[in-house]
Amino acid sequence: MNAEILSIGDELLIGQVTNTNAAYLGEQLSLLGITVRRVTTVGDRLDDLLQAFTRAWDEQEIIITTGGLGPTHDDVTRDAVCRFFDTDLVEDAAVCDDVERFLAERRRPMTPAHRDQAMVPRSAVVIRNTEGTAPGYHFSRDGRQFFVTPGVPYEMHAMMENYILDQLREGFRSARASLTVLTTGIPESTLSELLVGIETLCPGCSVAYLPSPTGVRVRLTAVASSQDEAEKRITELQDFLLERAREYVFGADRDTLEAVVETLLVERGLRLAVAESCTGGLITDRLTDVPGSSRCFDRGFIAYSNASKTELLGVDPAIIEAHGAVSRETAEAMAAGARRAAAVDVAVSTTGIAGPDGGSTVKPVGLVWIGISSGDGTHAFPHYFGGGRTRTKRRAAQATLDLLRRSLLGLPLHPSTSGSIP
Amino acid sequence: MNAEILSIGDELLIGQVTNTNAAYLGEQLSLLGITVRRVTTVGDRLDDLLQAFTRAWDEQEIIITTGGLGPTHDDVTRDAVCRFFDTDLVEDAAVCDDVERFLAERRRPMTPAHRDQAMVPRSAVVIRNTEGTAPGYHFSRDGRQFFVTPGVPYEMHAMMENYILDQLREGFRSARASLTVLTTGIPESTLSELLVGIETLCPGCSVAYLPSPTGVRVRLTAVASSQDEAEKRITELQDFLLERAREYVFGADRDTLEAVVETLLVERGLRLAVAESCTGGLITDRLTDVPGSSRCFDRGFIAYSNASKTELLGVDPAIIEAHGAVSRETAEAMAAGARRAAAVDVAVSTTGIAGPDGGSTVKPVGLVWIGISSGDGTHAFPHYFGGGRTRTKRRAAQATLDLLRRSLLGLPLHPSTSGSIP
Repeated sequence: MNAEILSIGDELLIGQVTNTNAAYLGEQLSLLGITVRRVTTVGDRLDDLLQAFTRAWDEQEIIITTGGLGPTHDDVTRDAVCRFFDTDLVEDAAVCDDVERFLAERRRPMTPAHRDQAMVPRSAVVIRNTEGTAPGYHFSRDGRQFFVTPGVPYEMHAMMENYILDQLREGFRSARASLTVLTTGIPESTLSELLVGIETLCPGCSVAYLPSPTGVRVRLTAVASSQDEAEKRITELQDFLLERAREYVFGADRDTLEAVVETLLVERGLRLAVAESCTGGLITDRLTDVPGSSRCFDRGFIAYSNASKTELLGVDPAIIEAHGAVSRETAEAMAAGARRAAAVDVAVSTTGIAGPDGGSTVKPVGLVWIGISSGDGTHAFPHYFGGGRTRTKRRAAQATLDLLRRSLLGLPLHPSTSGSIP
Repeated sequence: MNAEILSIGDELLIGQVTNTNAAYLGEQLSLLGITVRRVTTVGDRLDDLLQAFTRAWDEQEIIITTGGLGPTHDDVTRDAVCRFFDTDLVEDAAVCDDVERFLAERRRPMTPAHRDQAMVPRSAVVIRNTEGTAPGYHFSRDGRQFFVTPGVPYEMHAMMENYILDQLREGFRSARASLTVLTTGIPESTLSELLVGIETLCPGCSVAYLPSPTGVRVRLTAVASSQDEAEKRITELQDFLLERAREYVFGADRDTLEAVVETLLVERGLRLAVAESCTGGLITDRLTDVPGSSRCFDRGFIAYSNASKTELLGVDPAIIEAHGAVSRETAEAMAAGARRAAAVDVAVSTTGIAGPDGGSTVKPVGLVWIGISSGDGTHAFPHYFGGGRTRTKRRAAQATLDLLRRSLLGLPLHPSTSGSIP
């Protein structure tokens, strides 16, 4: 069963907006065993929409469009579907009620543009919008399914979860299994050397490496004659991978390193404090993205100025004077000071040169010292992350969380392949 | 001049990776006046690539592909371009040197997979990779330009900036101007009501609203017979917009609210501290994304536990006891305490219920109190951001930075349309 995702909107073509909707839809359809053959993005032009609708309708069995349903004049998707399915607009009382209730809850006034959203194509099944005002539509003809959704991500997600996925699930099953193994601290090329032979381990299996600045994800896929067999093959691949690269693996699929670390802390009954200089709050931001993070995360110190390192963390000014703010000694004093000031079990610290200025030959832009202090003592390690301010922040935050993971699991604190992660 | 962006990789179709490359390329091409007619994403399958190459070659004058050039076996783009352009591989000494130097700088070993990347299509111009190991290729035939680049964003960006944009610039000029005005604190529907009539203000102009959880961007575009005329029209549109909605406008195009706020602070010689509970470091993370943020940002307190609010910020436990950690009184005490503890001119604070748990009828999930303390006194304001933990964090961080902007500019501290921003 093949699908096409049609993303609609000038803002996508000119790069004002990144197409996260296609990624979400691709994942949801793949999980159902539906093959996404193509993602096509076109602008808000009636002719381009009609051409794209026609081609998708000729070639695919499932079509999902996103975008162009908003209350402003530049949205033409509703017009285009009316023409394509040769239907006109009719007022839908339920949608009208939905819009009124949605606005009332938010103490916002109803505008003519809102009222117009209750006008829907006569021959469509309406998909209610629980998160906004524009309804979606579902056309089903000649064995094909054509879903029309808004471009606002959470509105579209709600329609998928409340309606479209149920429609698609009926009748689909395929013997296919997959798992994405998440690694950090090892470059793609080194990892693929460690895993030589994995792709020929069993028939119908494939392995894809997905590198990012914070780690490499390894996607394992198996197709087999039965679901049991497909899952058995995934287990074989996973075992092979863990046997050769276990220390770099922090989770699978939707796991996040911050959630993994927090689970470890909670299991051990440990509380955490964080002292950040160059990462500027990114680590605590990630930690507090996890629901329930207050079970283990106590506080953070964003000790950006030198004075704040001394006042908040008790770092001796003589240490900064002698070794610099970016040094092993300062990183260690920050971690130990945070642990002491917050009276917690574990603390981590970062101090580095995020750039673009402030680098030198000895301490280049991208150098970050990462410290940890716990019952096992206080240690700090240097990382050379190369250029790019926000990329350096992201890599340093990831390496700090991974240092914490390694410490909690009793692994070597510094991965054998330090430095940059391509 | 029409272009197509061809994004290659199974990881894009199954949604493991979001297609940020297409957004970047769309923007870069649009800025040159090149019209991106379509973005097409296909998987790592030779036949699908050849089909997509053929269609793009038939229909467009400029084609840029990204992805599928990596060192692992699942990458087939090089094979596909060799077949499409009927050429074979030849070793390129310069690329070989590039790869060796790149790895040596990072103290990483050369693997056979790396060595293979020096094999390039004989009939292509090689595009050197300054950020990684896979080179790009440029084919120029029959008045068409076909560029092949890696999928790793910063590698592709460097190739664009160092080579491809220069190639494209030759001979393109068009009388087109555009400006994206950035607003926050006002919903799309209210903003479009305020701006009724803007789209018919002058001929050849268009206006697009791009809403996001943190604000609405308004893209103004003008096409005219001369560049001067196009820019004059943009100025007319911008003046109209500012006259009706000035207080919500914080910048244009690539501006960020954090950079705008820091410029205002530096201009006034003021230093800032931040006390965050529910936003968990997101505000300081954004502030420190700006190069040179240490000129005005002194420190942050991530006061997550109640004890830390008292110990770091001097919040009287009796206030938390009487009014709760999420209250006007606590938010004000946090802001005033941060200003005092850091001995700075201005401090802001957040305390809220990010969810998913912890809400009540009186204090629902999504309620965030945002405080500010400066020479003008200490104030706090409630915001109801609705559901979604990370979305609430993002909206609260944006509203806090906007409160700071409003305070620094002497605007009303609370926008007239409070509450949710659709």
